[in-house]
Amino acid sequence: MERGTWGETSTDEAEVVCPRFHAAIELIGRRWSGAILFKLIDGPHFFRELLVAIPGISDRLLSQRLRELEAEGLVERSVHDGVPARVSYCLSATGAALEPALRQLHRWAQEHQVNGSP
Amino acid sequence: MERGTWGETSTDEAEVVCPRFHAAIELIGRRWSGAILFKLIDGPHFFRELLVAIPGISDRLLSQRLRELEAEGLVERSVHDGVPARVSYCLSATGAALEPALRQLHRWAQEHQVNGSP
Repeated sequence: MERGTWGETSTDEAEVVCPRFHAAIELIGRRWSGAILFKLIDGPHFFRELLVAIPGISDRLLSQRLRELEAEGLVERSVHDGVPARVSYCLSATGAALEPALRQLHRWAQEHQVNGSP
Repeated sequence: MERGTWGETSTDEAEVVCPRFHAAIELIGRRWSGAILFKLIDGPHFFRELLVAIPGISDRLLSQRLRELEAEGLVERSVHDGVPARVSYCLSATGAALEPALRQLHRWAQEHQVNGSP
């Protein structure tokens, strides 16, 4: 028997996947959300800058994802005076704390080719 | 002017999000896929063990996600002799290389509450 590899009735193997991890990975992996978060690592950006940085996303979807990320507390929104007023987005402290995970994944993606969306 | 923070026309800000990162985050963040990969970090598992470890997933969806992850080269499938034959799954070398990123995200999820799915 290969100890530590198999052992169908051990407690470890009966353990369910952490629901907080599960929620987190599906939040950041939602279509376009990961790209938005990654772009905001380099600092605050205006709406239009994000639109340019993420080819293929529409105005409508970018607005929607930013609202979701704001509601989750990962992104903060600032309105800048002017005519017209401009809106910028940056990572909150919680969002910024994702940086090590996102950078690790970025490193992995440089070294391994996947065919996933988009 | 806050140098390094703003500067709308700099090359950096015009840079698009790396398409490989974009594909990778949406692959691992696809509904259920992150949970399956995380469970497989602790070693190979039989199909039924994965089903128990991920509450809420159906047989059909687990099969589908495993097939997708196998097609992407992240997961490997082994058939074990017996009646009935049993099938187990483990991470490939490419899948195992995701461990640091998944563990970082796990750590983040322990420290920050999100309301994302599921």
